[in-house]
Amino acid sequence: MRGLKDRIRQIAPYVPGEQPKERDIIKLNTNECPYPPSPMLLAALKEFPGEDLRRYSDTEAGDLVQALSDVYGVPADQIFVGVGSDEVLALAFQTFFTELSDGEHLLFPDVTYSFYPVWAELYHIPVRAVPTDDGFKIRREDYIGQQDAGGIIFPNPNAPTSICEPLAFVEEIVRSNPDKVVIVDEAYIDFGGESAVSLIERYENLLVVQTGSKSRAMAGLRVGWAFGSRMLIDALKAVKFSFNSYTMNSPAIALGAAAIRDVDYWKELCRRIISTRERLSSGLRELGFSFPESSANFLFAKHETISGEEVFQTLKARKIYVRHWNAPRIGDHLRITVGTEEETDALLAALQEIVG
Amino acid sequence: MRGLKDRIRQIAPYVPGEQPKERDIIKLNTNECPYPPSPMLLAALKEFPGEDLRRYSDTEAGDLVQALSDVYGVPADQIFVGVGSDEVLALAFQTFFTELSDGEHLLFPDVTYSFYPVWAELYHIPVRAVPTDDGFKIRREDYIGQQDAGGIIFPNPNAPTSICEPLAFVEEIVRSNPDKVVIVDEAYIDFGGESAVSLIERYENLLVVQTGSKSRAMAGLRVGWAFGSRMLIDALKAVKFSFNSYTMNSPAIALGAAAIRDVDYWKELCRRIISTRERLSSGLRELGFSFPESSANFLFAKHETISGEEVFQTLKARKIYVRHWNAPRIGDHLRITVGTEEETDALLAALQEIVG
Repeated sequence: MRGLKDRIRQIAPYVPGEQPKERDIIKLNTNECPYPPSPMLLAALKEFPGEDLRRYSDTEAGDLVQALSDVYGVPADQIFVGVGSDEVLALAFQTFFTELSDGEHLLFPDVTYSFYPVWAELYHIPVRAVPTDDGFKIRREDYIGQQDAGGIIFPNPNAPTSICEPLAFVEEIVRSNPDKVVIVDEAYIDFGGESAVSLIERYENLLVVQTGSKSRAMAGLRVGWAFGSRMLIDALKAVKFSFNSYTMNSPAIALGAAAIRDVDYWKELCRRIISTRERLSSGLRELGFSFPESSANFLFAKHETISGEEVFQTLKARKIYVRHWNAPRIGDHLRITVGTEEETDALLAALQEIVG
Repeated sequence: MRGLKDRIRQIAPYVPGEQPKERDIIKLNTNECPYPPSPMLLAALKEFPGEDLRRYSDTEAGDLVQALSDVYGVPADQIFVGVGSDEVLALAFQTFFTELSDGEHLLFPDVTYSFYPVWAELYHIPVRAVPTDDGFKIRREDYIGQQDAGGIIFPNPNAPTSICEPLAFVEEIVRSNPDKVVIVDEAYIDFGGESAVSLIERYENLLVVQTGSKSRAMAGLRVGWAFGSRMLIDALKAVKFSFNSYTMNSPAIALGAAAIRDVDYWKELCRRIISTRERLSSGLRELGFSFPESSANFLFAKHETISGEEVFQTLKARKIYVRHWNAPRIGDHLRITVGTEEETDALLAALQEIVG
């Protein structure tokens, strides 16, 4: 006789990064943008017609899709939007990787976004984590001609390594796997990388996923999207409309569209963060930290003598939060989000005391 | 050799009700509230700190959960919140009905919310649709002692029938199936029914799902929730955190909490809609329509001589939208949302001309 508990899906809950509510914390642990979202978003918020919330939101999120279409030059029917890139990716896992043949795996780097194995478990997808090299770089050849590959996903730039590969590298993997879906997760592409969006017209198997949470400073609005062939986008929409017709609420659509259309502010945010990143990089190097060259809004840094755990805890005691994982290969590394100039000063001063 | 298309999940996309953008339409087709949301929600919108959108939303949606806890008197750890009750239900299907034994089915009424079979297909859940009686009523005995039942879900009041069953009816089904999860979908409970929330302390297998979309006039904000035992709520959270840690955005949490706390306005909305429903009922009866007694914000009406399709199309030509399904058993029925007094006048006048 089966009991109630036997009928319930058991799954180890995913634990996201800490989100302390105190305002006096320097929060460099979740790769949020240190600057506010676009003034156009703030204006759209002021003008938002609250009375209209009685109506369901637009299932197609038409205004948001059109804004993306105009800014990126991609036809609207090749764009999919969702509740952050996390929803887009979760639905993509369910759409593209649940029909693998026996013996096939989803391939992704061993050091990468920690949600990939979680979605794979949720949807019972067999995976093979592919080791990055000693410098944490993805090796292109590991994703080409692999008999057991049923699908491929990797971030570019990779997280938490911050390493970006050139477009030709991405294209070769996509081109070499024409019968498998290849997802390039470009959450951090705006901080120095070259997007693969230019490839979607040529490769029907390529899905490029991006987010408004980092370079557009709207993590709390939950807006993400994907560009791809009509075949991939249509399949994603069918699964999404079977899950929840109205996942994006009206504020996300209206405010998200306004932020996307403010191209100048977005570019300025990226410039500022890249500039601060270069200053932070110099400061960290002088203090004995090493890290790969970053194309993201964070650094993946390791100190020459002091353990990652120790630096993490000591910073936390000083109310500076960075990210640390007790995980193989990366336990001595910290992922440090690029903050404001003032936050960077405070971080470097604190580290000076800790390691000096 | 498998091609790209063979690797992609194929599913028939769900088609939601029409959402025309024209403002001069009388829209009685999606059971939205005809009145604006709470003034407290509108005040929260005005005060919403747009700058904070750069930060991720609260994964626990603490303010919203606390508001529900205070208003409903349910401990916070027995509450689950999501992007509309649709997300809550979709995650509940995935959590509670994907581990059925061979030969077991999820049971629900044949005439019911049309998303249930869609989620079942999405998650490969075997189902058995149980016929309602000739008056579209759910028969309690059909859900008791069923050897093939692995889980049960039904709305109360049911949709699109508008029929509400008393609490003792619900309790008997819950009590008779202690080793199976029973979900009571109470999207329309506030318009005259008695909620089963009072039963969750006694029955570990009961999940009560509700929404802010109908009686709180915030369909466009996408706020839904469930009450249940800690075992069920913990299991739901584990699946949800594996899907997307941040499904609810910050505006949904802040504005939703404000609306939930405005108990007086909510009760007043329900009173007004119930009052208009009674007037609409009288008017429709005089015009030759029949329908079950409604405990919802809509009527499930059939004319004595004119087909449902004809009434639907004729009303649509006059810019009055109601809901009609070309489906077995219910093809001659219309689901008519209760609108404002003025919309009700216009509807009755148009029907007078059509059937008179």
